[in-house]
Amino acid sequence: MAGSTLGNLFKITTWGESHGKGVGVVVDGCPAGLKLSEEDIQKFLDRRRPGQSTYTTARQESDTVEILSGIFDGQTTGTPISLMVHNKDSHSRDYREIASYYRPGHADFTFDAKYGFRDYRGGGRSSGRETIGRVAAGAIAAKILTSLGITICTYTKAIGPVSTTAFDINEITNNQLCMPDSVAAQRAYEYLDKCIATGDSAGGVVECIVKNLPAGLGEPVFEKLDANLAKAIFSIGAVKGFEIGSGFDAATATGLSHNDDFTTDAENNIIKTTNNAGGILGGISDGSDLILRAAFKPTPSISAPQATVNNCHENITVNIKGRHDPIIVPRAVVVVEAMTALTLVDAFLMNMGSRMDYLLHFDK
Amino acid sequence: MAGSTLGNLFKITTWGESHGKGVGVVVDGCPAGLKLSEEDIQKFLDRRRPGQSTYTTARQESDTVEILSGIFDGQTTGTPISLMVHNKDSHSRDYREIASYYRPGHADFTFDAKYGFRDYRGGGRSSGRETIGRVAAGAIAAKILTSLGITICTYTKAIGPVSTTAFDINEITNNQLCMPDSVAAQRAYEYLDKCIATGDSAGGVVECIVKNLPAGLGEPVFEKLDANLAKAIFSIGAVKGFEIGSGFDAATATGLSHNDDFTTDAENNIIKTTNNAGGILGGISDGSDLILRAAFKPTPSISAPQATVNNCHENITVNIKGRHDPIIVPRAVVVVEAMTALTLVDAFLMNMGSRMDYLLHFDK
Amino acid sequence: MAGSTLGNLFKITTWGESHGKGVGVVVDGCPAGLKLSEEDIQKFLDRRRPGQSTYTTARQESDTVEILSGIFDGQTTGTPISLMVHNKDSHSRDYREIASYYRPGHADFTFDAKYGFRDYRGGGRSSGRETIGRVAAGAIAAKILTSLGITICTYTKAIGPVSTTAFDINEITNNQLCMPDSVAAQRAYEYLDKCIATGDSAGGVVECIVKNLPAGLGEPVFEKLDANLAKAIFSIGAVKGFEIGSGFDAATATGLSHNDDFTTDAENNIIKTTNNAGGILGGISDGSDLILRAAFKPTPSISAPQATVNNCHENITVNIKGRHDPIIVPRAVVVVEAMTALTLVDAFLMNMGSRMDYLLHFDK
Amino acid sequence: MAGSTLGNLFKITTWGESHGKGVGVVVDGCPAGLKLSEEDIQKFLDRRRPGQSTYTTARQESDTVEILSGIFDGQTTGTPISLMVHNKDSHSRDYREIASYYRPGHADFTFDAKYGFRDYRGGGRSSGRETIGRVAAGAIAAKILTSLGITICTYTKAIGPVSTTAFDINEITNNQLCMPDSVAAQRAYEYLDKCIATGDSAGGVVECIVKNLPAGLGEPVFEKLDANLAKAIFSIGAVKGFEIGSGFDAATATGLSHNDDFTTDAENNIIKTTNNAGGILGGISDGSDLILRAAFKPTPSISAPQATVNNCHENITVNIKGRHDPIIVPRAVVVVEAMTALTLVDAFLMNMGSRMDYLLHFDK
Repeated sequence: MAGSTLGNLFKITTWGESHGKGVGVVVDGCPAGLKLSEEDIQKFLDRRRPGQSTYTTARQESDTVEILSGIFDGQTTGTPISLMVHNKDSHSRDYREIASYYRPGHADFTFDAKYGFRDYRGGGRSSGRETIGRVAAGAIAAKILTSLGITICTYTKAIGPVSTTAFDINEITNNQLCMPDSVAAQRAYEYLDKCIATGDSAGGVVECIVKNLPAGLGEPVFEKLDANLAKAIFSIGAVKGFEIGSGFDAATATGLSHNDDFTTDAENNIIKTTNNAGGILGGISDGSDLILRAAFKPTPSISAPQATVNNCHENITVNIKGRHDPIIVPRAVVVVEAMTALTLVDAFLMNMGSRMDYLLHFDK
Repeated sequence: MAGSTLGNLFKITTWGESHGKGVGVVVDGCPAGLKLSEEDIQKFLDRRRPGQSTYTTARQESDTVEILSGIFDGQTTGTPISLMVHNKDSHSRDYREIASYYRPGHADFTFDAKYGFRDYRGGGRSSGRETIGRVAAGAIAAKILTSLGITICTYTKAIGPVSTTAFDINEITNNQLCMPDSVAAQRAYEYLDKCIATGDSAGGVVECIVKNLPAGLGEPVFEKLDANLAKAIFSIGAVKGFEIGSGFDAATATGLSHNDDFTTDAENNIIKTTNNAGGILGGISDGSDLILRAAFKPTPSISAPQATVNNCHENITVNIKGRHDPIIVPRAVVVVEAMTALTLVDAFLMNMGSRMDYLLHFDK
Repeated sequence: MAGSTLGNLFKITTWGESHGKGVGVVVDGCPAGLKLSEEDIQKFLDRRRPGQSTYTTARQESDTVEILSGIFDGQTTGTPISLMVHNKDSHSRDYREIASYYRPGHADFTFDAKYGFRDYRGGGRSSGRETIGRVAAGAIAAKILTSLGITICTYTKAIGPVSTTAFDINEITNNQLCMPDSVAAQRAYEYLDKCIATGDSAGGVVECIVKNLPAGLGEPVFEKLDANLAKAIFSIGAVKGFEIGSGFDAATATGLSHNDDFTTDAENNIIKTTNNAGGILGGISDGSDLILRAAFKPTPSISAPQATVNNCHENITVNIKGRHDPIIVPRAVVVVEAMTALTLVDAFLMNMGSRMDYLLHFDK
Repeated sequence: MAGSTLGNLFKITTWGESHGKGVGVVVDGCPAGLKLSEEDIQKFLDRRRPGQSTYTTARQESDTVEILSGIFDGQTTGTPISLMVHNKDSHSRDYREIASYYRPGHADFTFDAKYGFRDYRGGGRSSGRETIGRVAAGAIAAKILTSLGITICTYTKAIGPVSTTAFDINEITNNQLCMPDSVAAQRAYEYLDKCIATGDSAGGVVECIVKNLPAGLGEPVFEKLDANLAKAIFSIGAVKGFEIGSGFDAATATGLSHNDDFTTDAENNIIKTTNNAGGILGGISDGSDLILRAAFKPTPSISAPQATVNNCHENITVNIKGRHDPIIVPRAVVVVEAMTALTLVDAFLMNMGSRMDYLLHFDK
């Protein structure tokens, strides 16, 4: 079944493989009248580009986005925005060997199980390159949120056993790991150096905080804001865990300590005194900061030898050649931000018809 | 926007509030020819019924399900199955007081923020009673899975700080907490007794294991099996975290230890030697056990005094009267199982048209 | 696959068979704050009730609707509204005979072909009784439209060869055939009397006019307003044709005569001088009256003998006993109106997020 | 809201405007293992290409399709197939004049009303060029149907007042009007010559017949096969009417003459002796030929002078310059075929999970 479309009202459809002609996305349902240029999108794409640090080596491509439709006179027209990035570095390797066996931790086996065969060149559709479409679309969603005064901050919370303890927002763009803590970043470098030395790889945690989100977003029961965020984030390859607010710590807390008391602020608005809820109560945004976290598994592509089977069902040992980032997490930061932005815009639009007074006010 | 419908092909729509006439669900897309009786569904509902233990006191209702449509001669007809449970214990309290303030940890505030007012009786639509529809529908999904040889085992993995360490499947139904470990259950009882004594409450973790799931379920990119499970589970009230397989532990692992090697079994089938993936690779089931976990926050309704504001924006202290289970987790076990079953049946149906040979074989 | 749910934002899910416990509908996505009572819905249901004229004899039921959820203090809460009508006149006949053969013009054969068996009692899910859910939901949609100043007028345009030529809105409720032309109604009575005399039945055309619909509703390409109306109306059993505005006459017109010129009215609004478009240009409402028509085939249940096969594949002649309305069209009038109202509310909600200025205005 | 995606399981998303960089479509949900080349798609596109007859003059483009993703080793992989046609003849005109007024019969006014402004170059998204995506996707759907032994034949049934009376399948590709009747084609030429002489245009009717469609396709109530066909066909610009089988003639028929009797054929299969139903009973295919018709309005672009208003709300007379085909119908034939094929493949896939025995048989 079709699985490459996400969203109810702000809908994106991604396409493309690692080694085809390119990757792209169609963004449909974007409100008309948003000023949008290729530069707006390129800024986001540049944040996920390979080759930007010693820890994310590899593929030498500029990943330049082209807007193919949906913009006129510098503004969105309300019709589908088609975005494409051509693949350039895609014919440089021989994939015949990789075609013959199943890489541990990859989707080679499951694609074969599902479809009977697979596009084995660079992981095909299950390549990390698929996230280009998400990030390009997310840049548009983020621009809408910015127009509405909503801001998103996303960063690396932990790499392997190294967690951040300080938070300096300026530091996020100051180190190659997108960590808001320079000391932790230093320790993470050392950890990654060890991984590289042993042909191994590391995982980590990405955290995302959304400020100024209005209360009321999210639809009760199945289209809850946290449920849709969970789906959006878990649809990113390599994610194994997802949390809102207190997350798994909630399981060991007690009600008295975990419940966030309500009070009023200086302008007599109702606010919470704490934010264990992470900004969502009953699946609906509560006006506090939205806080989410995603756990990423270690990059499955490693250069150390591994045991697996080939397509003749023979046990073999493989040394996978090619690009091997010891860590995917810093490049995933912008993907998490994109998926969050996409989910929030969709939730915002879904909420616009929630009350009769909104309809009556609209119809003037 | 409509948020009470879930599923692509096996679609459920729930309705009802805590203190209305009843709660129910319409299950649409159930294949014709499944033998189904009210007893099949009642068995599941009985697992979530209040009043079954000293730790889940309260509401005295039998929650008897009635099948209103979709069955003929004891079999599903392929048309919508409408299920209803009448509310019986719903007029016993005066909710005027609760209407005047926002309970910490509840959705009172966010429903007001979204809709302008709320059905304050017993939490209205955000009541735990809403899960009756999920469980009733899940019973049907579970029966389909059973027909296909797929089995689900769900249990309490942890309550507050007490984690299970042993696993005895028979013990799950042997204690009031649905724990597969009698020693842990005993310690959890003691922990809960302390919570009750202080008017406090506890959270916990539910784990679910699915056996015999075929490889190939889940659609790449956005309809990934884990993404849809994440949404389904996170749509349950009180869930704050979700994991597949190694979950958050993956973030601290390295690629070498986390990658599951492939090998062959005695029948020459390709299997994994370990299961950190939790049965899903690239969003597609890999034939191993599917393993998921959900973290539940402590029950927000507690009898200890709490600070909050009333609807005049005045700071007050409240002592919430009424039923207060110190723990919701044991009753949530069957809800997690239901949501898992619903997601798996939908994924199974979505996969049926994935290959031309399936179509050609079907069309004979 | 699930086929009983319609709508993107204003979503209805119907359930129930002719001879089960009842029929119903869940309306999800209704904006909060709409005053709604059972009487609002009953008024619509009464318009489709059998036994109201000499030409629609039969089933003696009051079809009393019960609201099961979604209303609090006389207003919609924004959560699902569950409506049910119990079947009362459902055990009066022996359906064993009908079970043994395929009635011409009915869905007996196709339900068997699809599902392997069928609920043969009174047509099961393919019974006209299924429209109760549509009409009940449509009553809610119509009340929303009324709040917005949008009005719908639906009537019988033709019965068999008898077409209306005059239009008197008061006459519609003045005759048993819902015709806005008393002379035509008289001729139609005579035509129907002849049909009854020969055990035969008649078809007809229903027309629906919507006034005061704002321009801008409908989404380009696939969610065009006319496309969604076409689907909604064609989902009514017995419909064989659908038109907007000039309809099939457009095929024989020329561009010069068919194009509606634009001009301005007294308030300097842009209007069309004619309305061949029927209120829709490019799939989007243009502010003129929306005009649609549906052709209904003659009632397939007739008392005259017919040739068919039984389930042993033997050729037989049948005389179908029981209720046989010679005409279904007058009862279908309110069904067409309901489906139109449902489609328009959905289109109205879909349009609310179409422009950035709407979002910015909403977010204050 | 997003309106450029169609289909439940076999899902297409089109994008692009008349004078942007190109037009395209993403086809998602195509089963893996279908042999597919650009030639397969080009054959369909060539059938809608402008400049192929004296009656469809104009735009000189080859409309060459490029497959950007989803194919590996000449077969579909099960992942999204992205198709693009570059616009080449798109900068040849000055559209400033057309930007200043509303063309009668076009969507200029409604796009402005909806979005606040419009891409006025060549009609933007409401251009007939948008159908390229539909036809390209339809070519894939048609190839799937062919694999299943299902064939579609589509042709011009009438042009203006000239209806075909004979049917010679070979004649369809033998005249420029796609009519299966050479005598009618001759008379239609003469009619069109008159239209051209007066700067006027003509409409017409397209008919489509599908053979060998299995019984059982279509989901009861809202996803009926005829309802989805109605939506698909009515989403084509310029369609004003739609019929299945007897269509509007059903309204004047009687039950006795309209009901199709059942009998058995030589192989003891149940068949209908007539086909007024047009192959669909109760929204489900009955195994007979599927027959549908669409009425197209006359091309709104004509060279004769017309009255309209400009964007200063002044009444003006316009002589629209540029390409003016006197008839759009022959080019719409392949669009109707494409939309039919897309709907049928989706219905086929939706039906695959309709019975438990199908599931049990699949899971081997």
